[in-house]
Amino acid sequence: MALSSPIISHVCIIGLGLIGCSWIKALRSQGAVTSVIGFDSNLDSMEKAVELGIIDEYASSAKEAVKNADLVILSVPILATKRILLEIKDSLSSDTIVTDVGSVKGQLIADMDEVFGSYQSNFILGHPIAGSEKSGVTAADESLFKNHDVILTPLEKTNPQALSIVKQLWQVAGARVELMGVKQHDSILAATSHLPHLLAYSLVDTLAHKHENKEIFNYAAGGFRDFTRIAASSPQMWHDIFTANKEAVIDALDLFSEDLSLLRQHIEAEDSEAMMKVFTQAKIARDHFSEILARKEKS
Amino acid sequence: MALSSPIISHVCIIGLGLIGCSWIKALRSQGAVTSVIGFDSNLDSMEKAVELGIIDEYASSAKEAVKNADLVILSVPILATKRILLEIKDSLSSDTIVTDVGSVKGQLIADMDEVFGSYQSNFILGHPIAGSEKSGVTAADESLFKNHDVILTPLEKTNPQALSIVKQLWQVAGARVELMGVKQHDSILAATSHLPHLLAYSLVDTLAHKHENKEIFNYAAGGFRDFTRIAASSPQMWHDIFTANKEAVIDALDLFSEDLSLLRQHIEAEDSEAMMKVFTQAKIARDHFSEILARKEKS
Repeated sequence: MALSSPIISHVCIIGLGLIGCSWIKALRSQGAVTSVIGFDSNLDSMEKAVELGIIDEYASSAKEAVKNADLVILSVPILATKRILLEIKDSLSSDTIVTDVGSVKGQLIADMDEVFGSYQSNFILGHPIAGSEKSGVTAADESLFKNHDVILTPLEKTNPQALSIVKQLWQVAGARVELMGVKQHDSILAATSHLPHLLAYSLVDTLAHKHENKEIFNYAAGGFRDFTRIAASSPQMWHDIFTANKEAVIDALDLFSEDLSLLRQHIEAEDSEAMMKVFTQAKIARDHFSEILARKEKS
Repeated sequence: MALSSPIISHVCIIGLGLIGCSWIKALRSQGAVTSVIGFDSNLDSMEKAVELGIIDEYASSAKEAVKNADLVILSVPILATKRILLEIKDSLSSDTIVTDVGSVKGQLIADMDEVFGSYQSNFILGHPIAGSEKSGVTAADESLFKNHDVILTPLEKTNPQALSIVKQLWQVAGARVELMGVKQHDSILAATSHLPHLLAYSLVDTLAHKHENKEIFNYAAGGFRDFTRIAASSPQMWHDIFTANKEAVIDALDLFSEDLSLLRQHIEAEDSEAMMKVFTQAKIARDHFSEILARKEKS
């Protein structure tokens, strides 16, 4: 059901990727915004976004794009954000709300501090827990966030009105909004998303290049496909995430590697009891997680 | 389309699990066998299998079950196989074909040598590359092997007629049969199936028990679900697989751990070029694998 009046008028989106464009599509379909201007370093993406009705027009630069915007959505690769902030800094009006969709929040706080000299109260850092191994404007899907969580990480100084608007803009897209601390967000995401991606990339690369049997993937089945699906994601995006969230990712990896090396010892020693304990605990936790997710998807 | 005459008459299945029962269902639906007798250490499973029409009757022991069988299908947990072989040894007629469906072949060759004193030419070792995180007789599905590979690992002494019959019995279930050496099979499966299961179990266990945030699974998404789906599999089955294929699993794990530790160094050093190389190679390999699998599923 479309809204009776928009939540915010002029939206600017910098970076026309899957997540940002999916959000815009959902907002437009609900009548939550009046107009959208976009900028991307890739001209084809901008033309495609106009053609698909995701943006009304595109600008010649990020600096141009943000002028007159009530809301700026940053959806560029994480390590490009600082450059964009430097570029738009002087064109942003003081009451423009700025938000993002990135997987790492600590890095953006650091970038903001560096570029603006202090935390900006109208910056609402956000992260939708949704995605796809597909990418780009053509993959945009207005139902991508339906029944998914979006984590916002406000600080004490955050403007509550700006927070409330961004929250509504996510809810209108069908998402559930949760608030969380920056460090907590980055640590949880390192464990449940960044580390699994790292393991999947690493495993596929090892098998493809180091295993003596070159036909190895010919005999892999559905389990392997599921396990490695995330290794089909954008290398650049994940490079940025691992770099920006380096400490938390390495902490999660070290915790994992320690346990994996214990498990290796159990296998070598044929310690059945220890192995069964790990596998059984894991199965119980995984089944519990399945239930959580099934419940969320139904709600 | 059902066959005009059965491929083999009296079948005996020891161990009423997902894989064995699915195969039997497929064989019965094609008219490929005349009668099926079963044995399982669990009485409920045997009664359920009769009720579902998977077996015609059940026996009081494995030893009783194999009498008069033209084909014996062993589908018990890998480490239970030797005990079963000891039990049925004196009841097996010399021309009975024996086959199995296990994920590890080297261990069964060793068990056979120990129990019978030598390699038995009517033993056809097989492994369908298919499965499900579900298990048990009630999950049996006659289309489970459709367009899936089944690997048979004959030796020089293998009876070609017995091999041909087992091959037909898989083809009739919709599977593609490939022949492979025992060591090659165990090494490929260690890399593409056993290792991913080990990593998934280990990751879920670590996150569930070591991570300081107890609500960690609340914020995990579809990527995590796919990555960890295989950690919902049967702990006992996987305990047996890791134990029976210990050497190959540890080799694959060590190869993986070495590369993972290199990747950790790249992240720590923010070595973009090295990271991008791994992620890009992995994405290319994963996309290539997807194509292989899609082609197979269509064929």
